[in-house]
Amino acid sequence: MKARVFVMPKEGVLDPQGKAIGHALGNLGFSGIGEVRQGKVIDLDISERDPAKARAALEQMCQKLLANTVIESYRVELVG
Amino acid sequence: MKARVFVMPKEGVLDPQGKAIGHALGNLGFSGIGEVRQGKVIDLDISERDPAKARAALEQMCQKLLANTVIESYRVELVG
Repeated sequence: MKARVFVMPKEGVLDPQGKAIGHALGNLGFSGIGEVRQGKVIDLDISERDPAKARAALEQMCQKLLANTVIESYRVELVG
Repeated sequence: MKARVFVMPKEGVLDPQGKAIGHALGNLGFSGIGEVRQGKVIDLDISERDPAKARAALEQMCQKLLANTVIESYRVELVG
């Protein structure tokens, strides 16, 4: 089963990478760019076939390793 | 309009971050983890209202800044 995990900086947490991208886009001549936020996306192949168990394991992975839950929020998607 | 850009390492391109995540998950006791790939997700607020023009601008942004098209592929999603 394939899974995709999104890890984004939480609302209100400073995101210097996003800010840098926003400024760089402005410098390149792109206009009308508002807020930019950068996060991570992690694609995983997992052998678990049961969607509920897979989701539970992925939540554990996010809590333990993939996301810093103090400053980042995460979302798990099962791609199938 | 909100847009989301995914930037992933191309198939066949070595992804050391993904490999590190895979190993770390194994060390933490998670089993059945196959390939892991890590990419970036960039959320942008753009003032352009026309979806076709917004998509064209975002493609340009990817080509010029957001993705290194030699080793990375990108995908643009308009969230609305």
